[in-house]
Amino acid sequence: MNARPTDSTCPVARTVDIVGDRWSLLIIRDAFDGVRRFSQFQRSLGIAKNILATRLRHLVDVGVLRVEPASGGGSYQDYVLTDKGKDLFDLIVSLRQWGQDHTFTPGEQHSVLVDVATDQPVPRLRYTTPDGTHIQAHDIRVRKVNEAAQPL
Amino acid sequence: MNARPTDSTCPVARTVDIVGDRWSLLIIRDAFDGVRRFSQFQRSLGIAKNILATRLRHLVDVGVLRVEPASGGGSYQDYVLTDKGKDLFDLIVSLRQWGQDHTFTPGEQHSVLVDVATDQPVPRLRYTTPDGTHIQAHDIRVRKVNEAAQPL
Repeated sequence: MNARPTDSTCPVARTVDIVGDRWSLLIIRDAFDGVRRFSQFQRSLGIAKNILATRLRHLVDVGVLRVEPASGGGSYQDYVLTDKGKDLFDLIVSLRQWGQDHTFTPGEQHSVLVDVATDQPVPRLRYTTPDGTHIQAHDIRVRKVNEAAQPL
Repeated sequence: MNARPTDSTCPVARTVDIVGDRWSLLIIRDAFDGVRRFSQFQRSLGIAKNILATRLRHLVDVGVLRVEPASGGGSYQDYVLTDKGKDLFDLIVSLRQWGQDHTFTPGEQHSVLVDVATDQPVPRLRYTTPDGTHIQAHDIRVRKVNEAAQPL
């Protein structure tokens, strides 16, 4: 899908090389929303059939989606998230939350995440460590592979 | 940058339309790592000058980066994250964590996030609500704009 792999020791770059294009991200979003069939993806995305077919095949090849016999029987196929694909949940949430925070004018309506048990909107999610500490950009830095640990 | 805007009430789609391409995501990653100058981005990404110039201009236009006089003086310009850009931290973390979990073989080395205060690796971050509840895909669903709230 990409002409040239990026820095091979950077996990961000590896993910971007696999799912970092507009259509793949929107297909994965739709899959989380329960879209399963080729024609449903096509209707949702307004995408050319050949491009959609290429992207779906790519996402199956990399293990993000898998093909299943159609849930209603018949000759159709369903595309469903694998466990590896379901682990992209955080990525879709982060795209959603930034979009909610920065791309809507006050009062403008947008879709929202709701709790399946209560049907109430989910509060703003934050990245926290297992002990509950909220981690933001200024708390961390990236240590490259060829960089020695700093003495304390 | 994109031919056609997607579903205007979906925050995921709006974010994807702004930063959902490989080069923009890698430029934003580099900006978080302290890259500031055109030539540094070019060296890091191995990207053609005209493509890099287009992407940087786009990220400035949408308010993710801003231009500053070079930190060391002289006629150069620095590109730095705005507050809106810094809010993409979660997105870069989610790309990183999925890459760490799914794109490296056991024992294969990759860059890691470390705590700036202790220089120790940051534990796996999870999305939690303000009361500390870890939220996963099966806990939530998306309520579309034209969908009424469900009676409880």
